[in-house]
Amino acid sequence: MDQPQNSVTLAHALFHPGAVALIGASGNPKKNTARPMRFMRKHGCEVQLYPVNKTQTEVMGEVAYPSVDALPGPIDHAFVMVSHEHVFDQVRACAKAGAKVVTVYSDGFGEIGEEGMARQHELVAMARELGVRIVGPNSIGLANLDSGMILSVNAVFEADSLIPGPLSLVSQSGSMMGSLLARAAARGFGFSKSISVGNESDITVGEVVDVLVDDAATRCILLFLETIRDAPLLARALERARQAGKPVIAYKLGRSEQGDALAQSHTGALAGNDEAVDVFLKAHGVMRVHHLETLFEVAPLAMQYERPAPVKGRARRVAVITTTGGGAATVVDNLGLYGIEAVAPTAEFVEHMAGRGLAIRQTPVIDLTLAGTSEQYKDLLEQLLVSDWCDGVLSVVGSSAQFHPELAVKPLILSDKPRNKPLAVFLAPDATESLQLLQQAGIAAFRTPEACADAFAVFLEGAGPAPEAVQAPIWPDTLPTQGNLTEYQSSQVFAGLGVSVASSTLVQPDNLAHNIAYPVVVKISSPDLPHKTEAGGVQVNIRSDEELRQAAHEIMRNVKAYKPEAQIDGLLVQSMSPKLLELILGYRRDPLVGATVLLGAGGITAELNPDVALRLAPVSLEQAWEMIEQVKATQLVRGYRGLPKGDCEALARSIVAFSRLAALETPQVLEAEINPLFVTAEGVTAVDGLIVLGD
Amino acid sequence: MDQPQNSVTLAHALFHPGAVALIGASGNPKKNTARPMRFMRKHGCEVQLYPVNKTQTEVMGEVAYPSVDALPGPIDHAFVMVSHEHVFDQVRACAKAGAKVVTVYSDGFGEIGEEGMARQHELVAMARELGVRIVGPNSIGLANLDSGMILSVNAVFEADSLIPGPLSLVSQSGSMMGSLLARAAARGFGFSKSISVGNESDITVGEVVDVLVDDAATRCILLFLETIRDAPLLARALERARQAGKPVIAYKLGRSEQGDALAQSHTGALAGNDEAVDVFLKAHGVMRVHHLETLFEVAPLAMQYERPAPVKGRARRVAVITTTGGGAATVVDNLGLYGIEAVAPTAEFVEHMAGRGLAIRQTPVIDLTLAGTSEQYKDLLEQLLVSDWCDGVLSVVGSSAQFHPELAVKPLILSDKPRNKPLAVFLAPDATESLQLLQQAGIAAFRTPEACADAFAVFLEGAGPAPEAVQAPIWPDTLPTQGNLTEYQSSQVFAGLGVSVASSTLVQPDNLAHNIAYPVVVKISSPDLPHKTEAGGVQVNIRSDEELRQAAHEIMRNVKAYKPEAQIDGLLVQSMSPKLLELILGYRRDPLVGATVLLGAGGITAELNPDVALRLAPVSLEQAWEMIEQVKATQLVRGYRGLPKGDCEALARSIVAFSRLAALETPQVLEAEINPLFVTAEGVTAVDGLIVLGD
Repeated sequence: MDQPQNSVTLAHALFHPGAVALIGASGNPKKNTARPMRFMRKHGCEVQLYPVNKTQTEVMGEVAYPSVDALPGPIDHAFVMVSHEHVFDQVRACAKAGAKVVTVYSDGFGEIGEEGMARQHELVAMARELGVRIVGPNSIGLANLDSGMILSVNAVFEADSLIPGPLSLVSQSGSMMGSLLARAAARGFGFSKSISVGNESDITVGEVVDVLVDDAATRCILLFLETIRDAPLLARALERARQAGKPVIAYKLGRSEQGDALAQSHTGALAGNDEAVDVFLKAHGVMRVHHLETLFEVAPLAMQYERPAPVKGRARRVAVITTTGGGAATVVDNLGLYGIEAVAPTAEFVEHMAGRGLAIRQTPVIDLTLAGTSEQYKDLLEQLLVSDWCDGVLSVVGSSAQFHPELAVKPLILSDKPRNKPLAVFLAPDATESLQLLQQAGIAAFRTPEACADAFAVFLEGAGPAPEAVQAPIWPDTLPTQGNLTEYQSSQVFAGLGVSVASSTLVQPDNLAHNIAYPVVVKISSPDLPHKTEAGGVQVNIRSDEELRQAAHEIMRNVKAYKPEAQIDGLLVQSMSPKLLELILGYRRDPLVGATVLLGAGGITAELNPDVALRLAPVSLEQAWEMIEQVKATQLVRGYRGLPKGDCEALARSIVAFSRLAALETPQVLEAEINPLFVTAEGVTAVDGLIVLGD
Repeated sequence: MDQPQNSVTLAHALFHPGAVALIGASGNPKKNTARPMRFMRKHGCEVQLYPVNKTQTEVMGEVAYPSVDALPGPIDHAFVMVSHEHVFDQVRACAKAGAKVVTVYSDGFGEIGEEGMARQHELVAMARELGVRIVGPNSIGLANLDSGMILSVNAVFEADSLIPGPLSLVSQSGSMMGSLLARAAARGFGFSKSISVGNESDITVGEVVDVLVDDAATRCILLFLETIRDAPLLARALERARQAGKPVIAYKLGRSEQGDALAQSHTGALAGNDEAVDVFLKAHGVMRVHHLETLFEVAPLAMQYERPAPVKGRARRVAVITTTGGGAATVVDNLGLYGIEAVAPTAEFVEHMAGRGLAIRQTPVIDLTLAGTSEQYKDLLEQLLVSDWCDGVLSVVGSSAQFHPELAVKPLILSDKPRNKPLAVFLAPDATESLQLLQQAGIAAFRTPEACADAFAVFLEGAGPAPEAVQAPIWPDTLPTQGNLTEYQSSQVFAGLGVSVASSTLVQPDNLAHNIAYPVVVKISSPDLPHKTEAGGVQVNIRSDEELRQAAHEIMRNVKAYKPEAQIDGLLVQSMSPKLLELILGYRRDPLVGATVLLGAGGITAELNPDVALRLAPVSLEQAWEMIEQVKATQLVRGYRGLPKGDCEALARSIVAFSRLAALETPQVLEAEINPLFVTAEGVTAVDGLIVLGD
């Protein structure tokens, strides 16, 4: 994974091999192992195929070879369908025969647990040594639908014909690769490349995306994901896709905790946080859809239109034109759930249309059921598509879509469609033919109101700019570079980053001299006591030297009782800070996607009813503002009910500063938290916090 | 609406008329008005039809009559397709001709605004006088698919043949009636009755449901709703449906505020709260689905299985059997979003299956991709269906559903299916034929993972018992019976209901004598100052008579400055109550569904990030407990992190007591609120509150 081969060569071997070995190919049509050869013959593949079968001399009427060593010529790619104990020998033989890639269908590797994972590591190590790349193991295979080169046992390729087209699919589930291709084909969507990456022992989703960015026949990349195993590689590939103008759309399991746990266990992957994956995908411009079929249904939108930049301070607005009020309402209702506004035309627009002979009303849904002819429909649609008061146009077609498909879709197909104003179509009745006609015309058309809203919302959400690198902060020499930092040490780091911290002095129990104005807080300072309050290590509202002495005495007694062996650095005397609002600012290396930063409402109630915003770290100032707006509790300091306003500028700057922890390579910060972070009328104050370093 | 006609007669006239007049019927096949006659001839309707056309003497080769007066015999039902100004005359003529029901297709009534609404009221008043019932106006019509009696212009009936079946559909949207019938027909779902209720000026959804409860051919009632106009009637009909064992399934627009607003404006209906409609439907046993197609897809589940009673304290558990791990995960992920658990088999069950010759693993998804034969699949399924560790079984079928439909669905169709353990099936690939086969066998089968999870979750959620009437509380003689009550008056009502209130005494500014122990709170008491704090009318933590005098003086000065004309009843001296948690308990008459009660977290942050539970009022003790569990903040007094426990028994009893406000007829309570309601270690305390009465 660290040193991927030249990607042109990889691309060639993956999807355009000159010769291929089918190891374990069978002539018995009932067996899965007979499929790749049958599929390729059926779909006119002209690549040189070598079936390899220990016992048969012919397969499907063609010469079969007893072993890879016996092949009459070199190969670029092999598909291995033998049981796991024979895989090692076969990979070795393939390397000798010149194969650049071996796709391993065999199971019994990482997906079955520890023993299999050890076997998998061994396989990859051997392959690296041999200079061979591995797809899988436990991959159902891959296909180039353009050439009929199908190295897969998936039943979907039994279809009488394949529809070539601009979409390519990368799937972490083998069976879902087939199911998705089947569903898309039934709707007339054509594919170029399709691959099941199996256990991703070597070639990962990121590397395949990278190959597809350079694949001229691929215009849009679809991902079916269960997890992310190669965030840095995938991030680079996604940014290359963005540069190349190739949209990437993802359906990822794990929106519910249960789904996440299942996907992880199913794939033997690390447990991560789906929210973190979500922000990772968004940060890199991926459209993550929520409905399975939206994965391909949204593709025409993604390919046809420029995705807008995110807007601030208002909802996206969609103009709605329909011949079925109820049908339009089903989509509009769902759009509302995504925060997309169905917008009424302006008075000027109503007048403008009146001038063109069409009376419309100033309502969020423009209903032409009775009023319009087909020409008027087309004219209205074209006028909407050049209007600046909406960000997109939704057309919802009624019964004509079922009974007069040609007529129903005509104004949609014939209208001029500028590339900066997306058009989405929902067909209310059962209307297979209309869906097909629209699909053929490259128009995004949806079968269900839910998928239509999902797709339009995800597309219109827009994509921010690519993440920018930031300079790594300097780690103070005086601080440790591993283990847990105390509150006092952590506060020095936060201050160094540029986050304002409560003034404090570290004193010793036998010398409490300090220069903090009373009242103060006094807290135990120990790397072994991250939960100071539980240890009886905090006293607040100390008003005098005498009270401080008393408090220090009590704290030392409590702490000794709580954890006698704890290393005590001293006592932290801290000023009492005023506050308008209490927040949490957190930093965490997600095991799947890396550094993330979280802003959330503080206090125990917020634990039960979370009110948080998460982003990949580091964040830009713009993203920091997005986070502030996303956390509902910040309204309390942004003018809600006439309450005093807090210094959100300082808050935004502090989030940016804090998030720079992500740029630090040595020491590596695994976790950091400022809790609470007080927002005041002027500035913010980090009142308590901790940092956990990696080894 | 108040005095519905004998429903048998109404049912007869609606769906089984002996003779029908088609007023405004045209012979021009391009016109909508030609449709009903054509539909009925096409679908073999044997009812006596009388086309009425002012200018034509024949329509579609049959004799047409110039007016209703000229008909050769009496009619039971007329379908009116003339412009609104002629509707009145036609209804009058229909009454004379014996019609019991007139279905009005004509528009230009309530849906166009005030003028139309006046016209509509007039029409209904006239019809009542004549003893005629009205469907519509603005109704696209109704149909009896069993007999081919189609009084509708909806294009869906152009279909070559109609599929009769046990479902009946009541729709507030005319075009969606057609779209839903078309979508369902494409999947092989058959219908018995179908009706668009239009503006519901007279016959409402509730009354139609009532008719369908008695309709032998209807086994399941589907509702497409935009609003609710007849809650009491509908509630009674839904309870009759429940008694009769006829499931009712609803899709209602308005899950988003935008969708709600649109549905309301579209239909000219009152604005209500979708959450309130939701609890209304649930309270009366209706399954409200979230996906359009689930409306009919869930019907086999609803008809085939006993709906479970709700469970307390644990999630519903579903056993999952599949041949596609990824496909199963797409459903399981969505089930997780609804709080349904995919449950692993018990160790005993694994052993039990081993004894029957099948090795399965103890994982939340039982994957038989490699292991099982068709017989083993069937056996496992049957064993799951009699297991007590799951509440239902989900089967997710892979590619075989597409390429070997008969084989794929065989074990599902042939297995024994007890009526107490629901089975739902999702087909991962494109598999129209398998869907049809399952549908014909009465098995609930789903096209998308989202709809499958939606349906299964809604079904498994279960239905509580029918709401029970409670005795009306007695209204204290001393209190007003209209207008706003003061806090002090309100607290007397709450105490009378059985809710414990903070001790308090009403005193006068010139005589502050009281018997409440210090410290106390003092507040202004005035029906004109519901927002006491804003008026400067509250002071807390008063520790002595002297402080009280001072506070009273300040309050009186503030209040005079704030609202000089406010009527002042005095000052309320109230004990300072301890608290573990602050809640809100609210009561409101929703304009659509009537009395509701709300429990929510208190404080200003909860306004921004709501944490509430809503139910129809009055609530039972069991429902009160459900509400407590639903409000996340109550975990703070239910053992969270070792915090002291609050008296949730007292809280539950107080919710029940408070909700009895709903039973009060005179005076009518429009709104009531206890805010805050303190939960303490022993009991709860209503600290402040208000009541608003109707006139």
